[in-house]
Amino acid sequence: MNVRRLVKKNVLRLNAYNAREIPCRVKLDANESPYGFAKSLKNVSGIHTNRYPDPEATALRMIIAKDLRVKPENILHGNGSDEFIYYLVTTFGGPVLYPVPTFSMYGIISRALEEKIVEIPLDTAFDLDLQKILGLIKKKNPKIIFLSRPNNPTGNCFSQRRIQEVIQATKGIVVVDEAYLPFSDQSGFLPFIRTYKNLIVMRTLSKIGLAGLRIGFLIAGSEIIREVNKVRLPYNVNSLSQAVAVKALKDKKSLRTVIAKITTERKKLFAAMDKIPNITPFPSEANFILFETGNAAAVYSALIKKGVLVKNINDIMKGCLRVTVGTPRENTFFLKTLKEVLAKNW
Amino acid sequence: MNVRRLVKKNVLRLNAYNAREIPCRVKLDANESPYGFAKSLKNVSGIHTNRYPDPEATALRMIIAKDLRVKPENILHGNGSDEFIYYLVTTFGGPVLYPVPTFSMYGIISRALEEKIVEIPLDTAFDLDLQKILGLIKKKNPKIIFLSRPNNPTGNCFSQRRIQEVIQATKGIVVVDEAYLPFSDQSGFLPFIRTYKNLIVMRTLSKIGLAGLRIGFLIAGSEIIREVNKVRLPYNVNSLSQAVAVKALKDKKSLRTVIAKITTERKKLFAAMDKIPNITPFPSEANFILFETGNAAAVYSALIKKGVLVKNINDIMKGCLRVTVGTPRENTFFLKTLKEVLAKNW
Repeated sequence: MNVRRLVKKNVLRLNAYNAREIPCRVKLDANESPYGFAKSLKNVSGIHTNRYPDPEATALRMIIAKDLRVKPENILHGNGSDEFIYYLVTTFGGPVLYPVPTFSMYGIISRALEEKIVEIPLDTAFDLDLQKILGLIKKKNPKIIFLSRPNNPTGNCFSQRRIQEVIQATKGIVVVDEAYLPFSDQSGFLPFIRTYKNLIVMRTLSKIGLAGLRIGFLIAGSEIIREVNKVRLPYNVNSLSQAVAVKALKDKKSLRTVIAKITTERKKLFAAMDKIPNITPFPSEANFILFETGNAAAVYSALIKKGVLVKNINDIMKGCLRVTVGTPRENTFFLKTLKEVLAKNW
Repeated sequence: MNVRRLVKKNVLRLNAYNAREIPCRVKLDANESPYGFAKSLKNVSGIHTNRYPDPEATALRMIIAKDLRVKPENILHGNGSDEFIYYLVTTFGGPVLYPVPTFSMYGIISRALEEKIVEIPLDTAFDLDLQKILGLIKKKNPKIIFLSRPNNPTGNCFSQRRIQEVIQATKGIVVVDEAYLPFSDQSGFLPFIRTYKNLIVMRTLSKIGLAGLRIGFLIAGSEIIREVNKVRLPYNVNSLSQAVAVKALKDKKSLRTVIAKITTERKKLFAAMDKIPNITPFPSEANFILFETGNAAAVYSALIKKGVLVKNINDIMKGCLRVTVGTPRENTFFLKTLKEVLAKNW
């Protein structure tokens, strides 16, 4: 498959911003201030905030490449995964196809960029409705298909086999968004980026303890990376986030501990929710649990009044709320409050 | 003037991402990790990196609003000004008109977003060629006009009167990019955002000592801000940059010192360059100086070999290089090296 054939003509014609580092003693090329704010920025000592960030995020991409066992040229760094949705729709255009319900930004950004969208309801097991998707691939010829796995807000992983069938059937790009994969027992799609030239995997640091940094990654064949890189803003990830992310990613023990704690707590939370009458929690492989309740809007408001904020997704899934897995203390408080609220509402 | 008339229909139909902060004791709505990386992130203590950044950048917008004497609802925060060029072209579409030579990102991003561009050469004094611009406004009906003031790479300010005529003549948006204005004696266009509903001013922290943070601002009437905000990614400016920027902006003394030092040094650098035979420096109101030399490519390479990196803009302005104003020591080294290089090349 010739990947360049999938790229919009205006993007094909572009060149990537030349951000080659030229070693020098005196750097007077980039209109930076030669002075920093030493006194007021004591906390970020070591980082030259007066200089532009490394446009290639070299150190960060190196460590991620090692962790994910891919080459640095297969990785692109973004200001969160959100930024990549922008770049991918800019690079490949529409129609953009995705199952619903799923992460809202696929649709929001496609609409902002004036591309057609094709939404296909999940089947009753929250898995891909393969026959419908294959039919619409034929009919609509989507340029991008977004698949969130585990899927937000349902929490499950779409079947690997069905995703592979979608990848093989489409003439467009398939993006598997693995934001929540660290919390799942399933294996991801990284090993397939060599097999399928039209496959892109997205990862993020936002769910594993570093949402404030805004760092996401695209992993794909180097041809795709080269094209998407043409529409990337050269300084899209700031110096502080780059430096802090590198530090954090070196601390594998903390990373593993965070993920293990959240996964353990999710299992406990699910077991406890499963025993509460009048609600139905859905099994989750992510760091949140979707649950159905009688009057979702009322439960949501009552929870807020008692200090518990969950996500109200009643508008896209009738009767449903989504709760993020918190600390043991937060989860206990949530469970206690939920029971109180349900006792009053029913 | 009804600003909404200028907005692309697909954007008009969008709603902004709802990022209203709901006060709570236990926040379980956003799929964040409840745990941070305390040990490995000692340097950023005080900032909860496990939480998403404030999508409204409230503290940062408040301080900027006060500094610039506008209301917070007239300000939007971006991941550098670059991000706004993306958002503006997404919101208003093309054709996109700008004088040349100017900041390269106006053209790069317009091409990436598949919009037509209209480039108009500056006049011989590097000012706007008003007659040509007015003619092309009539003929091409540009949706956005980008004006960098002071202009990069020429260093001068376009005349205020000519810009006003452009704003009055066009039915589109005029963006005055004031990235370099802190180094100029001229007054900016902020006071006009009430007069002209189609005027947008861009500012940045990148030139005044904080390039690493990637923070830019859009200042305009609240109607424009509301529309551009619809295509903004909700978490576009990370927590660390927000916090450090707020700290830095409180330190007005450092800020003023940095700007004063650079402006003083620019004057000294210009006077010194003006005395060097075989080069012509152009007067600058920015933190860089454009200069013409015989064989720009050779001078550029020879400077690099001796450890001095300047910007080679020979491809857009024949014979020209651009040098950023450095510290007194850096400027002295640049001048000495430039003289050596010129002595050898001519």
